[in-house]
Amino acid sequence: MSGAARIVARLHELNGVSDDEAGLTRLTLSPAHKRAVGMVSGWMQEAGLATRLDGAATLVGRQEGLKPNAKTLLLGSHIDSVRNGGMYDGPLGIVIAIEALDRLRARGVKLPFAVEVLAFGDEEGVRFSTSLTGSRAVAGVFDEACLETRDAAGVSRRQALEAFGCDPSSIAQEARDPAGVLGYLEVHIEQGPVLEARGLPLGIVTAINGASRGEIVITGAAGHSGTLPMNMRRDAAAAGAEIVLAVEEIGAGKPDLVATIGRFEIRNSAVNVVPGNATLSVDVRSSRDEDRAVAVEEIASRVQEIAMRRSVKTDMTISYDMPAAPCDSGMMDSLERALKRCGHEAFRLPSGAGHDAMSFRDRMPHAMLFVRCRGGVSHRPDEFASEADIASALAVLEDFIETFGAEA
Amino acid sequence: MSGAARIVARLHELNGVSDDEAGLTRLTLSPAHKRAVGMVSGWMQEAGLATRLDGAATLVGRQEGLKPNAKTLLLGSHIDSVRNGGMYDGPLGIVIAIEALDRLRARGVKLPFAVEVLAFGDEEGVRFSTSLTGSRAVAGVFDEACLETRDAAGVSRRQALEAFGCDPSSIAQEARDPAGVLGYLEVHIEQGPVLEARGLPLGIVTAINGASRGEIVITGAAGHSGTLPMNMRRDAAAAGAEIVLAVEEIGAGKPDLVATIGRFEIRNSAVNVVPGNATLSVDVRSSRDEDRAVAVEEIASRVQEIAMRRSVKTDMTISYDMPAAPCDSGMMDSLERALKRCGHEAFRLPSGAGHDAMSFRDRMPHAMLFVRCRGGVSHRPDEFASEADIASALAVLEDFIETFGAEA
Repeated sequence: MSGAARIVARLHELNGVSDDEAGLTRLTLSPAHKRAVGMVSGWMQEAGLATRLDGAATLVGRQEGLKPNAKTLLLGSHIDSVRNGGMYDGPLGIVIAIEALDRLRARGVKLPFAVEVLAFGDEEGVRFSTSLTGSRAVAGVFDEACLETRDAAGVSRRQALEAFGCDPSSIAQEARDPAGVLGYLEVHIEQGPVLEARGLPLGIVTAINGASRGEIVITGAAGHSGTLPMNMRRDAAAAGAEIVLAVEEIGAGKPDLVATIGRFEIRNSAVNVVPGNATLSVDVRSSRDEDRAVAVEEIASRVQEIAMRRSVKTDMTISYDMPAAPCDSGMMDSLERALKRCGHEAFRLPSGAGHDAMSFRDRMPHAMLFVRCRGGVSHRPDEFASEADIASALAVLEDFIETFGAEA
Repeated sequence: MSGAARIVARLHELNGVSDDEAGLTRLTLSPAHKRAVGMVSGWMQEAGLATRLDGAATLVGRQEGLKPNAKTLLLGSHIDSVRNGGMYDGPLGIVIAIEALDRLRARGVKLPFAVEVLAFGDEEGVRFSTSLTGSRAVAGVFDEACLETRDAAGVSRRQALEAFGCDPSSIAQEARDPAGVLGYLEVHIEQGPVLEARGLPLGIVTAINGASRGEIVITGAAGHSGTLPMNMRRDAAAAGAEIVLAVEEIGAGKPDLVATIGRFEIRNSAVNVVPGNATLSVDVRSSRDEDRAVAVEEIASRVQEIAMRRSVKTDMTISYDMPAAPCDSGMMDSLERALKRCGHEAFRLPSGAGHDAMSFRDRMPHAMLFVRCRGGVSHRPDEFASEADIASALAVLEDFIETFGAEA
C-alpha cells in the first residue's frame, strides 16, 4: 500500500468514529473524541512515537532527535469535527505527519531535531463557545477562563476535561519554550475554492484570517399567534431575522470579509406561539484586523438600532477574538523550495478558515500547507481531497522535514 | 370551598401534570396527557358522570337526561398544552363544566337532556402538524389521513394513539348524530387583550377566526463560514430571515389578520457553518376567509421570489386550513340572557385563536364563553384568570345549562 493509500484508509477508519450514526460528528471531549485518541495513539506508536494525552486533551506523539536537548519541530492538526462534518478537515494533518515520519524512519533518515505530532481536540468550537485550547496550551497562551465555559447542557470545559481523564491543573506546564521549538507546520485541506479554481493541488498559506465569534441573545415577549395583534408584538425571531440580513449585508460590504449567522435558535418554539426569544451565533472573519473590528462594531450598532425600534432586549457578546496570524517567512520559503523540488508551483494564498496554527501567532514560527479540496466544500459529508493530491502533499512534507533538518 | 375556589385548586393540580419539570408541557398523547386523563376522569366520576376514553383519546364524561333518548348538550375543551404553556388554556373549560354539573346535581336540578363533558386532547397542534382530531371525531368530520401524520421523532398519530391505549379504528363511530345534539358550548380564557381593555370579565364569542398553518422548508448549500465568499453563498437562514420579515409585513397589511413564523429551525447548525437548511412554520388567521386566502397566496409568492433571487429551493405546504366558524345565534342569545340575569354586560367579540368549537362548524350549533385573562397573555407560564372572573363564568354557565334545559 502506498503512503497516500494508507493515509486515505486511516481517514476512512477515523470517519467511522462518530457520536452520531448518521454522519461524522466528533465534538470536543465526546465519547467519539476519546475513541479517536485511542485509534491515533495506536498509529503513532506503530510509527515509533512515544504517546501521551496532555492536560488539554491533546494527544502528543514524540520522537527524540539525534542530539540530546535538540530543538523540536511541531507537526499536527485536530481530530474534533463539526456536526455532520467531513473526514479530511483536521485528521489529514495528523495522519499525514505520522506517515511522513514513518517513511523517513523506513528510509533510515535520522533527524537531528525532535519531532512532535500533535492531535489537538478543540479546533471547531461547536460544543463550547471558546476553542483552540489545545494549541493555545502548547503555544503558552492558554486562558484559564476557558475552563469555565459551559456547553449547551451546562457542562463546563473543566468538568468535561476531567471526565475525559485529563488534569486541567497541568495545562500551564504544556507551554513549550519558544527557544526550543523550530516551528509548527500544519497540513490541512483548503476548505475553500481557490486552489481548485487555479488547478493546483497544493498551496502555501501566507496568513490565517482573524476571526471574531460570539452570540446575540434576543428577548422579546412570547404570545398567542392568533390573538396578539401584529402592532402589539415584540417578536424576537422577527428581530433576529433583521439581524441576519444586517450581518449578511455588512459581510458583503468589503473584500476578504465574511460575516455569518450560523445558529438561529428559539427555545420552546411552536407553530402557534409568537417567539419571545432567539439566540443567534455570529462569526466575522478577515485577513485585515481593522476591517473585522469595524464590521463587529457595525453589527453591534445595527443590533442596537433593531432592538430599540422593535422594543426587544438584545445582548451581544463576543467570546472569541483572534487577530490575523501571518505565517513565518522562513518556513514559507522552506515550503516553497520543497514544493519546487517536488515539481509543483509554489502558489501562496491566505486562509479564510481559522486553524490551530493561529494559536502560535507572536510566539513561535508557524506555517501551513493547503491541499486542494473538491468544490471548496468542507464541514459537510461530501468533503473530499483526492489520493493523488494527498500523495503530493505527503512527498512535499517528507521533503520539507528532511531538508528542514539539514537547514536547522 | 366555593365552586370557583375548587376550580382553581383543580387547575393548579393539573398544572403539576407536565412532561417537562421546568414548566407546563403536556403535548398530545404524551405521558403527562395520560396522567391528566386519569385525574380528570376521577373528578368526572365524583360528579356522577360515566367516563370512557374514546378512540381519538377524548375523555368523555356522560350524564343521562330525564327522558330516554333525550338530546345531548356537549360541554368541554382540551387538556393538551403548548410547550411551557399556561394552566387555564383548555383545562378551565373542562373543570368548570364538571363543577357546574356537580352544583346543579347538589341543588337537585334534573336536566331533561343528557350532558357530555368532553376533555379533548389534541387542540394545540404542537406535536403533530394536524390537530383538533378529538373534536372533529365527535363532530363527524374526522379525516383518516391525520392518522399518518408523524411527529418530529417519526412516530405516527396512529402509533401514538395505540400506545395511549386507544383503538383508532373506532374513531368513525364517535361521530354524534347532529339530530341528537343540542349544541356544543366551550368556556375558555380569551387569550387576547380585548375583554381586559373593556373592563369586562366575560364575553360571547361571535365566530372563531379561520386559520391556515403549514411549513416552509428551505434548502440552500452548507459551507464553511470562513472560506465561502459572501457572493457564492446559498444561505438557507438568510432566505428564511427574508421570509420571516415578508410574513410579518403581510400579516400587518390588513385589520384582523395575523401571520406568524413561530418555528425557525436549522439542522446541524454551528457558529462556523453557513446554514444549508432551514424549516419555518407559518400560521395565518383572520375572521375573513378571503383575507386569509389572499395572505397565504401572497406569502407563497414572496417565498418563490426570495428562493429564485437567492438560488435556494423552497417547499411550502399548508397542512391545516380551517375556515372561520360563526357561532350559533340561538346559543349566543341564550348566553346573552344568562349573562344579563347574572348582572353582566353581554359583550360580543370574535376569537382570534382557534378552538375545538370550530370543529362543529356546519355540523352542529356551537358557542363559546370567553373569560378575561391578564394582559391578554396565553401560552406562557404567567397566563392568569382571576378566581372572581371564574366565579362569574361558573354562575353564567350554571344558569345557561339550567335555562337551556327549560328552553330545550
